[in-house]
Amino acid sequence: MISATDLAVALIRADSVTPARGAVFDVLEAALAPLGFVVDRFVVGEAPDGPVENLLAIRPGTGRHLAFAGHVDVVPAGEGWTGSPWSGDVRGGLLYGRGAVDMKGAVAAFVAAAARRPEAQLTLIVTGDEEGPATYGTLALIDRMAERGIAPDLCLVGEPTSARLLGDTIKIGRRGSVNIWIDVAGRQGHVAYPHLADNPVPRLVALLAEVEAIVLDAGNRWFQPSNIEITDLHVGNPATNVIPARAQGRLSIRFNDEHRGADLVARIRTLAEAHGATITARISGEAFLTPPGPLSAMVSAAIQAETGLTPELSTTGGTSDARFLSQLCPTVEFGLLNATMHQVDEAVAVADLDALTAIYADIIRRAGA
Amino acid sequence: MISATDLAVALIRADSVTPARGAVFDVLEAALAPLGFVVDRFVVGEAPDGPVENLLAIRPGTGRHLAFAGHVDVVPAGEGWTGSPWSGDVRGGLLYGRGAVDMKGAVAAFVAAAARRPEAQLTLIVTGDEEGPATYGTLALIDRMAERGIAPDLCLVGEPTSARLLGDTIKIGRRGSVNIWIDVAGRQGHVAYPHLADNPVPRLVALLAEVEAIVLDAGNRWFQPSNIEITDLHVGNPATNVIPARAQGRLSIRFNDEHRGADLVARIRTLAEAHGATITARISGEAFLTPPGPLSAMVSAAIQAETGLTPELSTTGGTSDARFLSQLCPTVEFGLLNATMHQVDEAVAVADLDALTAIYADIIRRAGA
Repeated sequence: MISATDLAVALIRADSVTPARGAVFDVLEAALAPLGFVVDRFVVGEAPDGPVENLLAIRPGTGRHLAFAGHVDVVPAGEGWTGSPWSGDVRGGLLYGRGAVDMKGAVAAFVAAAARRPEAQLTLIVTGDEEGPATYGTLALIDRMAERGIAPDLCLVGEPTSARLLGDTIKIGRRGSVNIWIDVAGRQGHVAYPHLADNPVPRLVALLAEVEAIVLDAGNRWFQPSNIEITDLHVGNPATNVIPARAQGRLSIRFNDEHRGADLVARIRTLAEAHGATITARISGEAFLTPPGPLSAMVSAAIQAETGLTPELSTTGGTSDARFLSQLCPTVEFGLLNATMHQVDEAVAVADLDALTAIYADIIRRAGA
Repeated sequence: MISATDLAVALIRADSVTPARGAVFDVLEAALAPLGFVVDRFVVGEAPDGPVENLLAIRPGTGRHLAFAGHVDVVPAGEGWTGSPWSGDVRGGLLYGRGAVDMKGAVAAFVAAAARRPEAQLTLIVTGDEEGPATYGTLALIDRMAERGIAPDLCLVGEPTSARLLGDTIKIGRRGSVNIWIDVAGRQGHVAYPHLADNPVPRLVALLAEVEAIVLDAGNRWFQPSNIEITDLHVGNPATNVIPARAQGRLSIRFNDEHRGADLVARIRTLAEAHGATITARISGEAFLTPPGPLSAMVSAAIQAETGLTPELSTTGGTSDARFLSQLCPTVEFGLLNATMHQVDEAVAVADLDALTAIYADIIRRAGA
């Protein structure tokens, strides 16, 4: 029987800072092939956002068709680790390494779970670019699935959703996200002669004060209130006696399912234009929700059976690739503790890997029932 | 008789980008000594704002004691000149060169005027650092004068005050200037979890909106309204999904004689503290006024006699060293056209140098009468 920990160690040792290609997929393919999966690896995209390697592994079987989605790329290690971020050392019951929780550990646990349920119909959707621009990641995998007529009934994303204890939280949706760059042009001049200049800063300040006064909504049953943050300001004028020619700001809006990204952009644009400002917007993802139902009930039951916990159904946090997958079929996210993700000394408890394997195996069983 | 143009050419050829030392003072001393001036050159200050060379030239004589203040340092030439900025070429009746109007031309005109009025009691107060930090410039000259018991009755500063025609404007005062740096500290975090962070930007925006709403005064007989400009904003946050830890802004306040710099700083500090912001202020100079009186009447009469123009008595524009000299005695500023100062192809009309020499000579005559 496959050990989730052994496989996680092997995946961690295959250093795969985003975008991942090659070795880490070799490790995964070698683990999947003996379990009856037909493995389809493909490389797509061109610079600057590519090329990216992706893996689609299909195993025919009985019951509802469950897909598991994840990624084997990781964020850079950063400085200051106690050991090597790529050695997969186990110390004091913890497996250390970049990707231990986000999310090579969960990928390994799902493969180990699949080994325990050899009869189940399963698809693994694994990208090498979730941590990067993601232009050629999960979206390319969805295209590939459409081309090949692969249509899962349910999707489980293995992102680290647990907050304090394994199993305390699953995600049934995510807020949408849009970034907006604001640019206010004026006319440069000397501060002693303000009538000959047009200072863009007061217009930016007035616009941002109006933006700050916006209340998008009060939240709802499944979502916290939508929120606007001003994340940057820039003028870049070193001269104390010069009125600058340009002022810039940037907004980040995280919004719930009461909004569409394009409507929010239009609303900010209208405000901006009233102050002579222009905006550029990038919608990273729309809000989505898989309303509580059979899938979340099944995942909750499996968690409760293993851990005794009743998980919170949450929509908090950043975006995830579940925003794409939820367009195919009901999708929830459940995985390891996220406390150390993206941090120095990222680590997962070996006991959690074993428990997650048991939970994933139970979910596979329930899906196939 | 000394030609103002010849002396101006010699001064321009002695390249003297701020801080000026050596050669340009040699040229000036060589012109002054034959006119009966006792020349006192001294070097003061240490890095970074020094050393700086200054010159004090005294000539005993009759009548009221008139001082002429100026500088022989210049701003850097910059790129794109038609000829050399240091050759002192005369083309089409114009003398080109860095410092032609700001203010080697005026210094040369005053020396030429002094030559025409050998009986007059005069002091020349000439610094090598007016365009730089000015820490060891006119202030050091004033200290030197105090040490030596030199106390002029009237002071004329030769800055280029004329706007469209030589003689159209003299300055009888200047606004004060204060720069204020605003710093708002917050707590960094992820935009998806705003409750765990404290975004400093909205507090800066709210503070700046209040600053923008301030009306300091409506101006008065001699001064335009005081004015606040926001000259810079800075957050410097490259990450669209991060709430920044700090936001900064900068104000420039140009204020008239209804305010003191320290009061304005206190007012902004009170507003800032209400938003959890801290400030750092630097008062470059207080507002000052030499109310219209005998000196401005004398300068106006000399201008009118030569040009037919009745000069405007103005307090507009940036600060000047007259803010220091006005503490000694009534002080006005009058000099060449400022259209090309600090610009590429800075130039003065030879005819203007001659006319300015005649005006300065007439002022010397009227002061001594």
